[in-house]
Amino acid sequence: MASHRYCVIMCGGVGSRFWPYSREDRPKQFIDFFGTGRSLLQMSYDRILPIVPKENIVVVTNARYAGLIREQLPDIDERNILLEPARRNTAPCIAWAAYHIAAIDPEASMIVTPSDHLITAENVFHDCVRRGFDFVESDDALLTLGIKPVRPETGYGYIQIGREVAPGIQKVKTFTEKPNLDLAKVFVDSGEFFWNAGIFLWKASSIIDALHRYDSDLTSLFDQGLGEFGTDREMDFIGENFAACPANSIDYAVMEKAENVYVECADFGWNDLGTWSALYDQSPKCDEDENVGGETPLITYESSGNIFAVNSDKLVVVHGLHDYIVADTGDVLLVCPKSEEQRIKQMVNDVKLSFGDKYL
Amino acid sequence: MASHRYCVIMCGGVGSRFWPYSREDRPKQFIDFFGTGRSLLQMSYDRILPIVPKENIVVVTNARYAGLIREQLPDIDERNILLEPARRNTAPCIAWAAYHIAAIDPEASMIVTPSDHLITAENVFHDCVRRGFDFVESDDALLTLGIKPVRPETGYGYIQIGREVAPGIQKVKTFTEKPNLDLAKVFVDSGEFFWNAGIFLWKASSIIDALHRYDSDLTSLFDQGLGEFGTDREMDFIGENFAACPANSIDYAVMEKAENVYVECADFGWNDLGTWSALYDQSPKCDEDENVGGETPLITYESSGNIFAVNSDKLVVVHGLHDYIVADTGDVLLVCPKSEEQRIKQMVNDVKLSFGDKYL
Repeated sequence: MASHRYCVIMCGGVGSRFWPYSREDRPKQFIDFFGTGRSLLQMSYDRILPIVPKENIVVVTNARYAGLIREQLPDIDERNILLEPARRNTAPCIAWAAYHIAAIDPEASMIVTPSDHLITAENVFHDCVRRGFDFVESDDALLTLGIKPVRPETGYGYIQIGREVAPGIQKVKTFTEKPNLDLAKVFVDSGEFFWNAGIFLWKASSIIDALHRYDSDLTSLFDQGLGEFGTDREMDFIGENFAACPANSIDYAVMEKAENVYVECADFGWNDLGTWSALYDQSPKCDEDENVGGETPLITYESSGNIFAVNSDKLVVVHGLHDYIVADTGDVLLVCPKSEEQRIKQMVNDVKLSFGDKYL
Repeated sequence: MASHRYCVIMCGGVGSRFWPYSREDRPKQFIDFFGTGRSLLQMSYDRILPIVPKENIVVVTNARYAGLIREQLPDIDERNILLEPARRNTAPCIAWAAYHIAAIDPEASMIVTPSDHLITAENVFHDCVRRGFDFVESDDALLTLGIKPVRPETGYGYIQIGREVAPGIQKVKTFTEKPNLDLAKVFVDSGEFFWNAGIFLWKASSIIDALHRYDSDLTSLFDQGLGEFGTDREMDFIGENFAACPANSIDYAVMEKAENVYVECADFGWNDLGTWSALYDQSPKCDEDENVGGETPLITYESSGNIFAVNSDKLVVVHGLHDYIVADTGDVLLVCPKSEEQRIKQMVNDVKLSFGDKYL
């Protein structure tokens, strides 16, 4: 069975919320965030290897990151790197990967995973993914992984679960938008709501069927390429047509509309590392004042709750700084309260207005 | 007359209060503080050139800075660079320079000046120095320049003036220690007290006479070198004997004890740049929030009164920072409230304890 199992790693994001640490030419997923010597992408690749053979791991990314993929994942075959000529969100990305994989292996099942999340309990993750593959391979099911919420997070979408259809697997009752704090607390307390982690399992044929039903604009476009996928002409077809795909998320295009959607509830130490605060929470503290500094040589005075993201050999000395982000990337220094990090996207816009692309 | 006029630029300080901008291997005086393309030393040299011919400008510095002197002052003759083998404060430094110059020119008069101060009204300074030279050349006088105080500064010593002995030149009544704020206010209001800027004029023979009278330990040591100064053997003598000089300031060794001490009161836009706050006050503000950033590309949000000392091409983006020093030197980042800058010396000690000499 294993040889019909595929993995699609989505690796085209720009990670602008982590600017200046995440840059247009080296977004978050390519960064060694935890100073372990492995980028988030490499960690995602390593994590799936016990389940999916490397010949079946497909990376979808923006064309500009081709070099970074080859540098960070030298074991991946060139044919397994799908280079998007334009950014179109997850629906076109997943559609392409599904058509590509289905052309190679009509019996394929696949897990689709972001490249920039953290999972700390890998064994639990592996059990969960194996159970998920078994489930979707025996049924025409679209399966999403739901994460048991550990706090009333307002930054995520939630999935409300319905009846159990297999051990650990439930019918999805509803997908919700990001809730306000009061609602998020109700969600968490109810035990009925799980975080939508954006990790999916299905047969390639199942997602293609669902796309035909719920996003026929997209499939009518991709159907023109049948006979090209998996061949030397695939990239020409993509180059001609991919940019014409409307940008859309797979949640909106399919998951929120389809009937055969299921959720496997799991608790494998997941964090989407979507914000500096999330990274701070996830990171080991380096002193009794709860500062986070990774490998950075650090001396602090009357300073607490800060996260320092600095080239590791640079000495940082701070006095009187509480709950700040201090990010230093050589050509950019950012000092900003964690509580203001939602303004970083605006800052990046301001930087672009003042200085062009130089610091993006 | 001009050919008997000499200048001694004291250039051996370590400037630890400006760490990390000022470093052991490139102290404050060697830094282009104002982004003008000229270091404070070069500005000091340029400033005296209209009065003292370059053959008569002598730089005294620590041996480790020989390369920096040659790099920054390529016009200076090698024989005019006096390299101290050890740091012994100003009295031994000035004594050596006086013996050296007296050996070359027994009729020499000299101005002794720090290398790391700022003077903005150069014409006023030149008039003041010329009048000072005229005065000391006609009398056996030790002349210090007194700066009209513009604020009740507690970081400086003050000079109380007595009767006028020549236009603009008074007998010194007393030298004072650094006053507390209340006393400093009284000093400023009285009109009788001036800042001690550490700039001196005298004949070489006058200061050598005064040293014989008030610091005979020092002169008995230097007198052993008579016949060596100004010859090829001078550096050997210094190498053997300089380290034996007790560290002492010229104020304590001579100025506070001698009878023939005079002050020329002046107002030539002087700032000793002794602290980050002094540099902040002196620097042009780059926005309506009174931030100082020199040439640094800077974007600030809800931030005011900060001084950014950063390599000039690096982009700095800050949010919610008020009255801080942000100094970035490539291998060190310091973030510290201006109000805490007196702790920087302690920080440097802590850095040394934790990381050795690497970041000093």
